[in-house]
Amino acid sequence: MDKDTLLKAFERVTGVVHHTPALTSKSFDEMTGARLIFKCENFQKGGAFKFRGAVNSVYSLSEEEASKGVATHSSGNHAQAVALAARMRGIAATIVMPSSAPQVKVNAVRGYGAEIRFCEPTLKAREAALEEVVAETGATFIHPSNDLRVIAGQSTAFQELRTDVAATALEGLDIVLAPVGGGGLLSGTALAAKLIQPPAGSTGDGGAAPQVIGCEPAQADDAYRSFKSGTLVLPEHPDTIADGLKTALGSNTFPIVREYVDDIVLVQEDEILQAMKLIWERMKLVIEPSAAVPFAALLNGSIEAEGARVGIILSGGNVDLDALPWYR
Amino acid sequence: MDKDTLLKAFERVTGVVHHTPALTSKSFDEMTGARLIFKCENFQKGGAFKFRGAVNSVYSLSEEEASKGVATHSSGNHAQAVALAARMRGIAATIVMPSSAPQVKVNAVRGYGAEIRFCEPTLKAREAALEEVVAETGATFIHPSNDLRVIAGQSTAFQELRTDVAATALEGLDIVLAPVGGGGLLSGTALAAKLIQPPAGSTGDGGAAPQVIGCEPAQADDAYRSFKSGTLVLPEHPDTIADGLKTALGSNTFPIVREYVDDIVLVQEDEILQAMKLIWERMKLVIEPSAAVPFAALLNGSIEAEGARVGIILSGGNVDLDALPWYR
Repeated sequence: MDKDTLLKAFERVTGVVHHTPALTSKSFDEMTGARLIFKCENFQKGGAFKFRGAVNSVYSLSEEEASKGVATHSSGNHAQAVALAARMRGIAATIVMPSSAPQVKVNAVRGYGAEIRFCEPTLKAREAALEEVVAETGATFIHPSNDLRVIAGQSTAFQELRTDVAATALEGLDIVLAPVGGGGLLSGTALAAKLIQPPAGSTGDGGAAPQVIGCEPAQADDAYRSFKSGTLVLPEHPDTIADGLKTALGSNTFPIVREYVDDIVLVQEDEILQAMKLIWERMKLVIEPSAAVPFAALLNGSIEAEGARVGIILSGGNVDLDALPWYR
Repeated sequence: MDKDTLLKAFERVTGVVHHTPALTSKSFDEMTGARLIFKCENFQKGGAFKFRGAVNSVYSLSEEEASKGVATHSSGNHAQAVALAARMRGIAATIVMPSSAPQVKVNAVRGYGAEIRFCEPTLKAREAALEEVVAETGATFIHPSNDLRVIAGQSTAFQELRTDVAATALEGLDIVLAPVGGGGLLSGTALAAKLIQPPAGSTGDGGAAPQVIGCEPAQADDAYRSFKSGTLVLPEHPDTIADGLKTALGSNTFPIVREYVDDIVLVQEDEILQAMKLIWERMKLVIEPSAAVPFAALLNGSIEAEGARVGIILSGGNVDLDALPWYR
C-alpha cells in the first residue's frame, strides 16, 4: 500500500469519524519513566477504532457497489462499526453473527439498522453464511482486518495522533504501541508511521519514523509466533480476556507486519487486567481489555521506553459493565 | 464576589490545573432532545474539580501565610486536592480525617505528602482537631466549599467550559447543570455564568446568561429545601450513593445560591445509578455517582431542556472499582 492511499483514507474519514482526544497522565509517566500519550479510540463512534476502517471501506464504494450494500462476519466491534458506517451512508448492511453471540451485541448491531444472519459458531459456518449473503445480494464483503480499505482506514488513528502530538510539548514520537489481533490496526499504524513523514513542526524526532511495536496476549500469541518465525501461523485455542485479539493475521496484514513492524511483545493475563484497572482508576477511562495490552507491555518491562515519547492506541471501550473481569 | 475575583482566579489556576476536555454524545442528544456538552472534571488532577478551588486558595496565599502551611478537614476529594496543591506550591498541608476513612483515601492523601491528623468521626471532633492544628502551626484553613477562594476557584470549570463551547458549533449555552453538596461548585458556576459576559464569538445566545440549575439527591435534599424555603437548613441523615453531596450549604454559598441560581432539582437513587452507568457505557468515562446527578435530572424530566444547549459539569471520577454500586 502506498502513502497516497493512506492520505486519501484520512481525507475520506475526516469529519465522519470522531477526531478523538489524546490524553496524557503524569502518574503513568512517573511509573514508566517515559512520556506517554494515549489516543482515545474508546471515544470513537461505535466505541472502537474499528469504525475508521468501516467508514473508509463503506465510503470508498462506487454508487453501484453501494446500492448492493455491504456484508461482514463479526460478533464484535467490527460488526457495530460496519452497521453504523452503512447507516450513515444510507446503504444496507448484513452481519453474519454466531448464534452464540451475546444479546447485547446483537441488539447493538440491530440498533444501527443492520440485518443479522445467524450461523453456527464455527469458522466454516460463518464463511458459508457470508458467501450466501454475497451471492444473494451482491453485497461487498468487508473483512474485519485483512481488507486493504480497512487497513488504510485504521491507519488514520495514528495519522490523527501524530497531528495531536505535534500540538503538544512532545514534538514527535519515538515509539508507537498498538494491540494486535487480526492486525488491521497494527498494519495501518505501521504503514502510517513508516511511509508518512511527520508533519512540519514535529522537529523533535529529527523526522525519523517512530518504532512500531505490536502487543499481544501470551495466550493468543499467533502474531508473535508468525512474526518471529517468518511463517504465518494460526491461533491454537486462544484464551484471553482481551477477546478482540483472538483473531489471526491474514494474507495482507502478515506481509505488512513483517515489513513495517519493529517488534511484537507478549503480556500475561494478570498483566492485562492490572493495566486495564490502572487506566480506569487513574485516567478515568473505560477501556476494554484489548486496549490495555500495550500499557501492560510497558509495565511488564517488555519494551525499553526509558525517556522515550510513546504513543499508545487505546483501541476501544466496549465492555460489559455487569461482568467486569475483576469481579469474576 | 465580583467579576474581577473570578477572572483573577482563572488567571491564577491556568497552567496549574488541567484544561479538561469537553465531550459530546450524539446518543445522549437523541435521548434527551437537547444538545449536551460535558465538562470532564473527572480528568482533573486529583480526579475532581476540587483541585481548582484548592489551587486558587493555596496559590493566593502570601509568602508568609504559605510558610505556615494549609489545613483542612475532609475524607474526600477536597483532601486530595489540598494535599496536591500544597505539594505543588511546596508548602505543608495537614488534613484532618475521621479515623473511619477508607484506607485507599488515606493512602492517596499521604501519597501527596500531606500530614494526616485522625479524629473521631463526628463533626465536633473534626472541628476541634482542625482548630488544634491551626493553633499549633498557624496554617490557613481551607474550607471544602464555603471558602470564597475555593468558590472562585470552582468557578473556573465553567469559565473554561464557556471557552470550550465557543469553539464548538453550539455557540453558547442556554442551561448549565452542576451537582450541589456544599455548594462550592454550584456557587462558582452561577457567579461565572451570571457575572461574566460570554466570550466574543458566542453570539448564539445573544449574550444572555445561561440558566443555572443545581442538581441534588432527593435523599440529601438540604440545598433544595434551603433554596425553596429561603432559610438555610441542614441535612438530616443524608443517605445517598452520591457521597460527595452529603454536605450542607454554608454562610457564603447559601446567599450566592439564592441570588444567582435559577433552580434546584432532585433525583432519586436509582436514577443516579442509571445515569452513572449510562455515562460509563456510552461515553466511556469513569465518573463518581455525584457527577451523574445532573444527567439523572435531565433524564427524569425535572429539567425542561428540549432543543436547549446544556452544559453539564462532570464533577469527578474517584470511585472504588472494587465496590461499584451496581454490584452491591
